Amino acid sequence: MLVDGKPYRTVWLDSAARSVGIIDQRKLPFSFETVQLSSTSGIATAILEMYVRGAGCIGAVAAHGMYLAAEECREEGLDAEAFDERLGEKGSELCATRPTAVNLEWAVKRQLEAVAKGDDVDAKVRIARELAQEIADEDALWCRQIGEHGLPLIRNLFEEKGSLDPVNILTHCNAGWLAFVDHGSATSPIYAAHDAGIPVHVWVDETRPRNQGARLTAWELGKHGVPHTVIPDNTGGHLMQHGMVDLVITGTDRTTHTGDVANKIGTYLKALAAKDNGIPFYVALPSSTIDWETRDGVSGIPIEKRGSEEVAMMSGVTDEKVFEETNVWIVSPGSPVANYAFDVTPSRLVSGLITERGICDATESAIHALFPEK
Amino acid sequence: MLVDGKPYRTVWLDSAARSVGIIDQRKLPFSFETVQLSSTSGIATAILEMYVRGAGCIGAVAAHGMYLAAEECREEGLDAEAFDERLGEKGSELCATRPTAVNLEWAVKRQLEAVAKGDDVDAKVRIARELAQEIADEDALWCRQIGEHGLPLIRNLFEEKGSLDPVNILTHCNAGWLAFVDHGSATSPIYAAHDAGIPVHVWVDETRPRNQGARLTAWELGKHGVPHTVIPDNTGGHLMQHGMVDLVITGTDRTTHTGDVANKIGTYLKALAAKDNGIPFYVALPSSTIDWETRDGVSGIPIEKRGSEEVAMMSGVTDEKVFEETNVWIVSPGSPVANYAFDVTPSRLVSGLITERGICDATESAIHALFPEK
Repeated sequence: MLVDGKPYRTVWLDSAARSVGIIDQRKLPFSFETVQLSSTSGIATAILEMYVRGAGCIGAVAAHGMYLAAEECREEGLDAEAFDERLGEKGSELCATRPTAVNLEWAVKRQLEAVAKGDDVDAKVRIARELAQEIADEDALWCRQIGEHGLPLIRNLFEEKGSLDPVNILTHCNAGWLAFVDHGSATSPIYAAHDAGIPVHVWVDETRPRNQGARLTAWELGKHGVPHTVIPDNTGGHLMQHGMVDLVITGTDRTTHTGDVANKIGTYLKALAAKDNGIPFYVALPSSTIDWETRDGVSGIPIEKRGSEEVAMMSGVTDEKVFEETNVWIVSPGSPVANYAFDVTPSRLVSGLITERGICDATESAIHALFPEK
Repeated sequence: MLVDGKPYRTVWLDSAARSVGIIDQRKLPFSFETVQLSSTSGIATAILEMYVRGAGCIGAVAAHGMYLAAEECREEGLDAEAFDERLGEKGSELCATRPTAVNLEWAVKRQLEAVAKGDDVDAKVRIARELAQEIADEDALWCRQIGEHGLPLIRNLFEEKGSLDPVNILTHCNAGWLAFVDHGSATSPIYAAHDAGIPVHVWVDETRPRNQGARLTAWELGKHGVPHTVIPDNTGGHLMQHGMVDLVITGTDRTTHTGDVANKIGTYLKALAAKDNGIPFYVALPSSTIDWETRDGVSGIPIEKRGSEEVAMMSGVTDEKVFEETNVWIVSPGSPVANYAFDVTPSRLVSGLITERGICDATESAIHALFPEK
């Protein structure tokens, strides 16, 4: 999407295919800095140190890391068999950076399987390069398709309003292009509507404790020119009671094939408020995040507990012109703190799922009808 | 309540009745400092600069300010008639510090009416002193009675559990003793249960944007020795889904005589989650906060919008041993921010109201039955 008028993805190859470009997302929103990485170890560091985050983005960056790894194996002058073995080692190094990132392991494995089919070293390197691009393009395409399928929802709401007032959409956390390669999931229908000339305004939950809404979603919407307002997470219910929200769209970290949605902590509270006020609550997702095993999300999906310092300590800048962040402690000293990262929204509160194949009800039968091969 | 083993109220007269003691609540939770104020203008500054906050606390401090004002009028050597006029001027100065604080105006008016009945200047000063004490004692008594009436709720939940596990109570914002003279409203049943030996554990919503939960409620519970855990406001729904909350108690800024509850923004979301999970949701209040005019809280109670910097800027300490607070900006630069201070929880979501006269349903008939004189 656009940053100050120039289109960006979260990962790209330079024109000579010697380095991989990424955005240092740790510096957002106070500074926009891109980094060129020219080694597997550089990619590993970027994933480990969270220069990049978000399932789709991590997968695509790892796929590009495997291309750099292939180039390194060629430079080492290995024969085809030793090449594959060495590439496997480098893949394991990448996977070790964030062991719970499913897309990371998936991208590395996909590269290893494809490269193994190459007849010689040059073919293997070419395959790795093409597959890195393919994985990134596929992620961007799926997200763009989510946007195309979600766009009519927003268009209909705009036409129902019968005025030139914007469609007010509330979102939680960052399910934007920064978490993927482009477009995002929850944001994709919003960008599609905005780019189609439909007036939209986004209520951005700040999303405590890590503030991905206030930091990332607000930044990317602003850079693309989408009108938005940041609000404390406590606010959405009040806005819904007063007709100030027309639609809720969130992303998801994992959705069961029965329609229960695990997403950033606090999503469930917004779904309850949407239900109470008759407001549609949609979840946008590439089908890769559907869990085809778990039936009951509330009892079946383990919820990660993270460190208390994420809640007790707040990071920001003391001066908007100085991009060095300062940490301040904001909780009464000595008070225990709990930090649950996700919650589960039961399917009964979900109006529908927006996938790359279209929109379906959040029910087992509808999900399986859309993905009959599963 | 206790601070490091020593009992405190939020306002007191020194033994010579020459100065009024308060806690500088701006420094909490990082530093506990009391201040002795010996003039009306000192009291006015303390209210204006928010050394003290909370309806009950402001009313009692203002009542004590009027006693100091009476002493000042006596020192000016005024006769009884000029005394009353001058005291009225000083009362107006106090009222101007926070024009929307209902309890402030109420306390000043009550003092002026009482003092006017005094036969001579000495009698007037004595009346002002006694009434200041009476207003503080009355506030503390009402809060203590709220605790006595709420205690059986907690005791019953403990007995129902049939184990030695604590009763888990979730609260939002600060409706604690710091906001009154003693005991608090929402916290009063909790303190009563704790002091009666019933094991309780409190989930303290941090309460964005001003973090009164993480700063004040956590501090006062900790100082009194009540087990508690601070959580982001997003967390309560997840806890309720997993049986980790037995009871919700909040305070209120204004409750309609039909049972709708205006309280700190985000309260409505917790009430929805409590309802969805079959958890009792109680609101504790002195009857002085009942609005006997408004019938529909959602449409009838105006919701204050406050400055965006309260959301965009976070205040805390960089070192827990250095009590100087630092402000950091935490929102993407240039992004608009909205800050609604309160929301309204419809009566249908409220299990009951805990008042100084007892518990009643959040219905017009039950409220009027408990307060037949209204």
